[in-house]
Amino acid sequence: MADPSTEAVSDPNETIMRATYRALREHGYADLTIQRIADEYGKSTAAIHYHYDTKEDLLAAFLDYILEQFKDAVHEVETTDPEQRLELLLDKLLVDPEDHLDLLVAILEMRSQAPYKERFRERFRQNDEYVRYMLQTVIDHGIDEGVFAAVDAEHEARALMTIVDGARTRAVVLDEERALTTARRTADDYVANVLVNDRRGDGSQRG
Amino acid sequence: MADPSTEAVSDPNETIMRATYRALREHGYADLTIQRIADEYGKSTAAIHYHYDTKEDLLAAFLDYILEQFKDAVHEVETTDPEQRLELLLDKLLVDPEDHLDLLVAILEMRSQAPYKERFRERFRQNDEYVRYMLQTVIDHGIDEGVFAAVDAEHEARALMTIVDGARTRAVVLDEERALTTARRTADDYVANVLVNDRRGDGSQRG
Repeated sequence: MADPSTEAVSDPNETIMRATYRALREHGYADLTIQRIADEYGKSTAAIHYHYDTKEDLLAAFLDYILEQFKDAVHEVETTDPEQRLELLLDKLLVDPEDHLDLLVAILEMRSQAPYKERFRERFRQNDEYVRYMLQTVIDHGIDEGVFAAVDAEHEARALMTIVDGARTRAVVLDEERALTTARRTADDYVANVLVNDRRGDGSQRG
Repeated sequence: MADPSTEAVSDPNETIMRATYRALREHGYADLTIQRIADEYGKSTAAIHYHYDTKEDLLAAFLDYILEQFKDAVHEVETTDPEQRLELLLDKLLVDPEDHLDLLVAILEMRSQAPYKERFRERFRQNDEYVRYMLQTVIDHGIDEGVFAAVDAEHEARALMTIVDGARTRAVVLDEERALTTARRTADDYVANVLVNDRRGDGSQRG
């Protein structure tokens, strides 16, 4: 997604989300305080509490905001050619600019808290469902057009998200920028050899 | 890996590791205390501090212990047939019994702390290197025997670990046991269609 912290805005909620984005990237999740977000916001903590009662409320809203950002990014994908569209979606999911690794660090911390914070889990599930729906739709479209083999589109969307989530975790845990590049190549090979119709001599597939 | 908490042992370090294993599964990482490990150990906190100065020392040792457990599990894989051996390694990595999801929860918490705790990061890197080495060796062996195509074994080991790590993250964050099954199938399809020689009509592959 495009760095949302650099454009001027007037909506206070949007401005607080951008301040949260910057504060998370700088301090991570565990060390994030309303004070630190207020510092980025340039106003008092009361100005934030006017909109959000607790840090958890604010962060739940932030996870919604991230999904909206992704939806905006996806709307930029204009092509309807299934193979090209799938490529571009995978680019949006995996080809992140370097400076977003900080955000991935904070998000992995929040992800690891999902078993303890139902509101986080709900958001991560919603985000995952949305992205899988996008992937599944384009795969189904490709099957209809005969570009992709008669695969199980629901499963294949989960398979691709497994690669995406693996990349994000590995980038953070191992501090490996290349984890995203590796995953992009893995997803490409997977699509070319498992999904695309003309890649297999007999059209069959182990399951 | 086999549940290490059920067998009788006399080595105090081994007993402390098993107590840590049970305490982590019950309380998670954030709420883990030396007291809670001591409760599982059946001795005083002093008995634990005799071996480990801090909780972080103990958990670093625990991550080493997990790797040793995995090494023991891998030693049980006796076949030298590359395709079968790769299947069995992927089973060890992805076909976890249900009751280990608790441990995956605690480990994802520790993984998310890797950017802040160098000793954790070191262990996760060592574990990852070891497992990738196992995978790469069997893939190279398969290439030599002509079972696998002339792929880049180092990359393919990273690709498979991306799938494994994605499954572990998704199982915890989304609370989806099926994430492991999905990933096992994804890895199988990947191996069958990208690695295995006779799966492709022309032997070519996009990269």
